Amino acid sequence: MRREINWQKFLAPASVALVGVTSRTGAESFNILENMLNSGYRARYYPVNPRVTEILGLKAYRSVLELPETPDLAVIAVPRDAVVPVVRECVAKGIDSLIVITQGFADADARGAELQAELVEVARAGGARIIGPNTLGVVNNFVNLHTSFVPFMTRCLPIGIICQSGIFLSGGVYFTGGVGIAIDVGNAADVHFDEVLEYLGQDPRLRVIALHMEGLRDGQAFLRVADRVSREKPVLVFKTGRSPAGAHAAASHSGSLAGEDEIYEAAFRRCGLIRVRNVEEMYALSKTFATYESPSGRRVAVITFTGGGGIAVLDALSDHGLEMAAFSEATVRELQSYFPAWMEVKNPLDIWPAAMAHGYPAVYRRALRQVLADPNVDAVLCVVGGNLPPEYDPLCVADVVKEEARACPHKPVLAWVFGAAHHEYAVRVEEDNVVVAYRSPDLAALALARLYEYRHRSRDRGAAVIAEPTDVCREDAVRLPAACRDGGGEDAAVVALRLLECYGLPLAPYRIAGSTAEVEVAAAAVGYPVVLKALSPDFTHKSDVGAVVLNIGGPEDLRRAVEAVRLNVAGRLPEARLTAWLVQRYCPGGVELLVGAKRDPVFGPVILCGLGGIYTEVWREVSFALPPLDCEAVEEMLRRTRAWPLLSGARGRAPANLGAVTDAVLRVSRLMQEHPEVAELDINPLRVTPEGALVLDARLVLK
Amino acid sequence: MRREINWQKFLAPASVALVGVTSRTGAESFNILENMLNSGYRARYYPVNPRVTEILGLKAYRSVLELPETPDLAVIAVPRDAVVPVVRECVAKGIDSLIVITQGFADADARGAELQAELVEVARAGGARIIGPNTLGVVNNFVNLHTSFVPFMTRCLPIGIICQSGIFLSGGVYFTGGVGIAIDVGNAADVHFDEVLEYLGQDPRLRVIALHMEGLRDGQAFLRVADRVSREKPVLVFKTGRSPAGAHAAASHSGSLAGEDEIYEAAFRRCGLIRVRNVEEMYALSKTFATYESPSGRRVAVITFTGGGGIAVLDALSDHGLEMAAFSEATVRELQSYFPAWMEVKNPLDIWPAAMAHGYPAVYRRALRQVLADPNVDAVLCVVGGNLPPEYDPLCVADVVKEEARACPHKPVLAWVFGAAHHEYAVRVEEDNVVVAYRSPDLAALALARLYEYRHRSRDRGAAVIAEPTDVCREDAVRLPAACRDGGGEDAAVVALRLLECYGLPLAPYRIAGSTAEVEVAAAAVGYPVVLKALSPDFTHKSDVGAVVLNIGGPEDLRRAVEAVRLNVAGRLPEARLTAWLVQRYCPGGVELLVGAKRDPVFGPVILCGLGGIYTEVWREVSFALPPLDCEAVEEMLRRTRAWPLLSGARGRAPANLGAVTDAVLRVSRLMQEHPEVAELDINPLRVTPEGALVLDARLVLK
Repeated sequence: MRREINWQKFLAPASVALVGVTSRTGAESFNILENMLNSGYRARYYPVNPRVTEILGLKAYRSVLELPETPDLAVIAVPRDAVVPVVRECVAKGIDSLIVITQGFADADARGAELQAELVEVARAGGARIIGPNTLGVVNNFVNLHTSFVPFMTRCLPIGIICQSGIFLSGGVYFTGGVGIAIDVGNAADVHFDEVLEYLGQDPRLRVIALHMEGLRDGQAFLRVADRVSREKPVLVFKTGRSPAGAHAAASHSGSLAGEDEIYEAAFRRCGLIRVRNVEEMYALSKTFATYESPSGRRVAVITFTGGGGIAVLDALSDHGLEMAAFSEATVRELQSYFPAWMEVKNPLDIWPAAMAHGYPAVYRRALRQVLADPNVDAVLCVVGGNLPPEYDPLCVADVVKEEARACPHKPVLAWVFGAAHHEYAVRVEEDNVVVAYRSPDLAALALARLYEYRHRSRDRGAAVIAEPTDVCREDAVRLPAACRDGGGEDAAVVALRLLECYGLPLAPYRIAGSTAEVEVAAAAVGYPVVLKALSPDFTHKSDVGAVVLNIGGPEDLRRAVEAVRLNVAGRLPEARLTAWLVQRYCPGGVELLVGAKRDPVFGPVILCGLGGIYTEVWREVSFALPPLDCEAVEEMLRRTRAWPLLSGARGRAPANLGAVTDAVLRVSRLMQEHPEVAELDINPLRVTPEGALVLDARLVLK
Repeated sequence: MRREINWQKFLAPASVALVGVTSRTGAESFNILENMLNSGYRARYYPVNPRVTEILGLKAYRSVLELPETPDLAVIAVPRDAVVPVVRECVAKGIDSLIVITQGFADADARGAELQAELVEVARAGGARIIGPNTLGVVNNFVNLHTSFVPFMTRCLPIGIICQSGIFLSGGVYFTGGVGIAIDVGNAADVHFDEVLEYLGQDPRLRVIALHMEGLRDGQAFLRVADRVSREKPVLVFKTGRSPAGAHAAASHSGSLAGEDEIYEAAFRRCGLIRVRNVEEMYALSKTFATYESPSGRRVAVITFTGGGGIAVLDALSDHGLEMAAFSEATVRELQSYFPAWMEVKNPLDIWPAAMAHGYPAVYRRALRQVLADPNVDAVLCVVGGNLPPEYDPLCVADVVKEEARACPHKPVLAWVFGAAHHEYAVRVEEDNVVVAYRSPDLAALALARLYEYRHRSRDRGAAVIAEPTDVCREDAVRLPAACRDGGGEDAAVVALRLLECYGLPLAPYRIAGSTAEVEVAAAAVGYPVVLKALSPDFTHKSDVGAVVLNIGGPEDLRRAVEAVRLNVAGRLPEARLTAWLVQRYCPGGVELLVGAKRDPVFGPVILCGLGGIYTEVWREVSFALPPLDCEAVEEMLRRTRAWPLLSGARGRAPANLGAVTDAVLRVSRLMQEHPEVAELDINPLRVTPEGALVLDARLVLK
C-alpha cells in the first residue's frame, strides 16, 4: 500500500534538501538551487554536496543524515548509481517526499530498469513517495516554486499540467500559454497520472488540466479518476507515441486492427477527456478553457474588416459544426444606419466600408458592441489584423476587442490575429486574459466548438445502470475455455460458439459432425440450406484454404461439398488434419457486422465493432469502446462505424434490429469481463436484419 | 481580344497617376500616395483630385486629361459611381494600365455588377487592362513598390502571391513569411489568375507562387497555365469558400455528391498545384519552398534535447509518410564516443545526456554536423527550445543550427522552435533564410513531405497520349439526346443506355418492350434470368417505387413480376404512367461501381467514380477527375475510392478487370467532351468482375 501523497510538501515545502546540487553557478551549470532562489520561492534550503562547504551562501552538507531538521522535500540529482543509496538515507532521515531528477533508469537500459525497481522498493518500504525519476519536478506558480535545473520564463494561469517530459513543464508558456501547477511525472515509477490528476482536479484555482502522456501502466485506475475529474473541469490530453513503430508486428487478426492508439482514443472518450492532436491545439484549447465561460449556443457572429478573411473564418466555423448567427432585425437596422447603402449588412460583418467613412476603431467598437447585444449571437469571432506593432498602429483594435469582451463576460469573444505584427498583437490582445488570440481561424473555431461541446456534453456519460443478463450459463462457460486449452479435442471456433451460446447470444442453428457420415445427419437436423466448414487444429482462416462451402441445398450437394473441401485443403495445406465438420444453417442477407473483443495490457477488455465479412479485412475500419458498456455507449460505437447508415435504414431500407445488436455487444462485453482467460474473441459475421441478429462464425484466442 | 498586359507598367511604372487620392495624411487617411512615397519607390507621381491644388508637395490635377504626360499606371480610388467616367478619361489620355481600388462592384449589389461590366467594356474598347476593382493593387518588393492604402511591414522573399483579398497582399509577412511580387486581382473583372500566374511563373526571382483563391471564372484557361507553371516551380493554393452554404441545395443525385470544393480539389490535383488547407500550412509551405532545395530522399534525422519532444516529432514524421533515418555505423560510433554508455545512440537523437557532460551548444553542433554528414540522412529536423530570449539564453543553439545548415545546402535542416521565447527564437533562426522555424513538428513534417513530393512528383503528369476510341458511332450518338429532349417518347434511362452503346461501352443484354405481351419475347431474347424495370416519365429512381424486379428465372415468374410492379407503382405513385418495360439479363456478383459525370460551370466536364449500388447513396464517397484522362489518371481516381481494395484483389480475391473499368471511364470522359448537351450521366452500377465490366443501369440529365 502506497502512503498518500503530501502535496503540501511537494508544492509548498517549508524546507528543501537539494542532494547533488552543483557548486557551479550561471550558464550551463544546471544549478537547481540557483534557479529556485532566482524564482523567488522562500524556504529553508539545504544543499547536500560532500565536495564543498558552501553553495550560494548556504552551508553545504555531506549527507542528508547531517541536516539539522527533516526537510519537507528532497530534490535528488546525483548520478544514477548513487540515487538508491541517497534515497535510503532520505528515508532514514524521515523525508517522505522525494523528487528524483536523475535520468538513466527505465528510460535507458536494463540496469536502469533494475535501479528504478529498487528505488521504488526502498521508498515504499520507508513510506516515502517519489516523483520521477527522469523529471524536471514541479512548478507551483502560485508561490513561485519550481525545481527545474534549467531557467525558464513562466506565467501564472489557472491551468494545471501533468506531463512525462520536462519541456511541457518548462515550456508552459508555449504549450498552454501559462501554468498554475505543473507536475512532470517523468518515468512515473511511483507517482503516476491518476494521483496527480485527482489532486489537481480538486484545486479550485485551476480551471483546466492539460496532460502530456506517453503511456499509462494501470489504465483502469486512471480512467476512474479521469472520469470523475472531467465532470468537474475540462481535461485535455496530448498523447504522443501514436505511430506504431512495429510494436504490434506479430499481432493476430483483430489484434492488428486494434492499434494501441485507438484504444487510448476509446479510453479518453470513455472518461470524457478532450484529446488534442498537436501542440497548437494544446495551446489553443488550454487558453480557451482557462479564459472563457462556455457559450450557451453555437451561433457565432464574425466581425471582420476583410471579406476574404471572413470567408476563411466561415470555412473554419463550418468545419467545426458551428453556426453563423443570423442577426436580429434590430441589429441589422442599427448597423445599416452607418453602413453604405450598396452593402447588405449580414454575418460575417465586413466593417471596412463603414470604417472608411466613419473611422476604423470607432466602427469596430460600435459594431462589436451591437453584435454582442444581439440575442441571436452566442459568441463573436473577431478578425484582427496587425501589420504594424500595436503601439505604432493607429488602426489598432486590440484594446477595443478586449474592452467590449470584458463588458460581456457570458459571450466568448475570440480573436484571429494576423498580419506582420501578429505576435505583438496577440500579446496585447491577451494581456488581461479576457480574449484569446488564435493563430488561425481554424484553431479559433476548433476551440469554440470544444468549449461549447464540453458544456453540452452528455451529463450521465457512463453512469447508466447496466442490466445484468440473467440467462447466462456461467457454469458451462467456465469449463469451456479450459476444455479448449487442455487440448480436449475441441476446435477453438466451436468453443467460441459454445461460449457465446452460454452467454445467451443467438446462434445460427449448428451441429458438429465427427465424421463424414454424421455430416448428413447434422444437416438434416439444422435444416437445408446449410453451410459446411471443416475444423482443423492446423488452420484458423477456413475460407483461405477453401474449407467453407455456402448455400448447400440438399444431401447430394452436401456430399459433393465434403469432397470439394477435402480436395481444397489437401491442395493448399497437405499436412492439415480435418478433425470434424461444422454444419450450420445457411442464413444469407442482412448486414454483416464484426463484433469483437481483445484484452489490452493497459486498459483490460476492449470491445470493437465494424463492418463484417470481407469488409473487415478490406477496409480495416473498426470502432472501439471500453466496458462496462450501456446501450447508449454501444449505439455510439456503432455510429462511428461505416456500418451505421446500413443499420439505421438509409434510403428507405428497413432499419436493422439495433436492440439485438446492442444485446449481443453487451453480452460479449460481459463475457470478456468475466473470462480473463479470453485474450481475443471475434464474432464475424454477426448477421443483422430487421428481425434480429445471428452469430454465423466466431473465433477465440485464449491467453 | 484582350490586349496583352504590360507588366512593366504595373510593377515598375516610371509615372503614376493617383486618381481620387486624398489630401489628408497620417493615421486613417488611407493615402496611397503617402504610402508609396514612404515605401521609397521613385516615380513621377501625379495626384488627381479636383478639390485641392497640392498633395504632399506635389501639384494636384483636376483630371487625368490635364496631366503633362501619359502615365504608365493609373491607380483609381474614387467613389464607385465615378469610376467608369474616370476610366473613360484614362483611356482617352492613352493610359493602358489601371488599378481600380474602389469596392462596391460585383462584390456588392446588382448596380455594382452592372458598373463592373461597363468598366470592363470601356477598358477593353480602349485597349486598357484593369487590375481590380476591389483590390489593394500590387506589391513589388524588388523595387519597394506597393499601391496599398494601408501601410504595412513587408519583407522581400522569392515568393509570388496572387490573391483575391488585400489581406494576403498587405499581410504577406504573416501569410507567407514575405513576398517578392504580390498581385491582388480583387474582383478579377479583367486581369485574372491565369495571366498573373503565367507572368509570375516566368519571373526567375520567384521560387514559389502562393495563390489565395475564392473562385475562378474560366477554369480550363487557368488549368492550362497552372499545369505549365507548376512544372517549373511549386504553386501553392489556399482555396477559401469551401463550405457549401446551401449553394447546391437543389442539386440532383450526383450533383449533390459533387460538392464544388471537390471539383476544385480535382482540378488542383490535375495541374499539379499543392493545396494548403489553412493559413498555417500556407506559411509553412511558402517559406519551405522559398528556402530549401528538395531532399533526395525521405530519410529524416531528428536532433532533440528532449525525449518527449522527439516522440512528438516521430508521430508527425510518421503521419506524413517520412522515414526515420538509420544512422550509419560510423555515425553511431562517433556519437557513442561522447554519449553516456547507458544510452543507446539512435534516431531521434536525444543529445541531452551528452550535453549535460560536455556542454549544450557544443554537443548540438557536433552531433548535427555528424548527422548531416551521414549518407543515410536526407534531411534533419532540429528540435530547438527557447525559454529565454536568444540574446539572454546561454543555451541558444539558433546560430549553431543556421551555421551547420548553411554548410550543407543540399540537405534541408528544419527547426521546430518551441518554448516561452519561441517567437524571438524563430526570428533568430530564420534570419538568413537558410533554416525555417516551424511552430509545430506537424507543420515541419508536412512541409518536408511536400518538398520531397514536389521533386519526386510524376514527371509526365497528364502528358500521356490519350488513345482515341475508333469504335464510336458518333452519328447515332448525336441524334439520341435530341430524341430524348424533344419528348420523342424515349425514356432517359434508355437513351443513356443507347448513348453508352454508341460509345462502345459494354452493356448487359437488354430489350425494350412496349407492352406486357412484348415483355416475354424480350426476356426470351436476352435470356433468363432477367431483370424487369418499368419505364415512366413520372419517376426516375425506379427502385424507390418498386418498379424493379431482379433475378426472374422464367416466364411464369416474369408475369408475376409485371403484376407486382404494376401494383407497387399504383400503390406508391397512383398517377404515374408506365410507358414501357426494360428487360435486361440479370448479372449478379462482382463489384458494383458508380461511374458518373457532370458538367461544372467553372471546369466543364468532371468524371466521378465510387462504389455503386446502395453504397453510392449510403456513404456518398466518390472521387473526381477532370478530362482529358489517361489510364494512369483513371487508376489514380479509382485508388482514391473505397472500391479500390475490392478491385485490386484484397485478401486473395481475384483482381477485377481494371482494363475494362478504365476503358469504360475513358469512354464516358470522351462522351462528355463530345456532348456538351449532356449535363449529367451516371452509370450505376458498372458491374466489374475479373472477366470484364458491364453497364447494368444508367441515368442521363440533359441541359
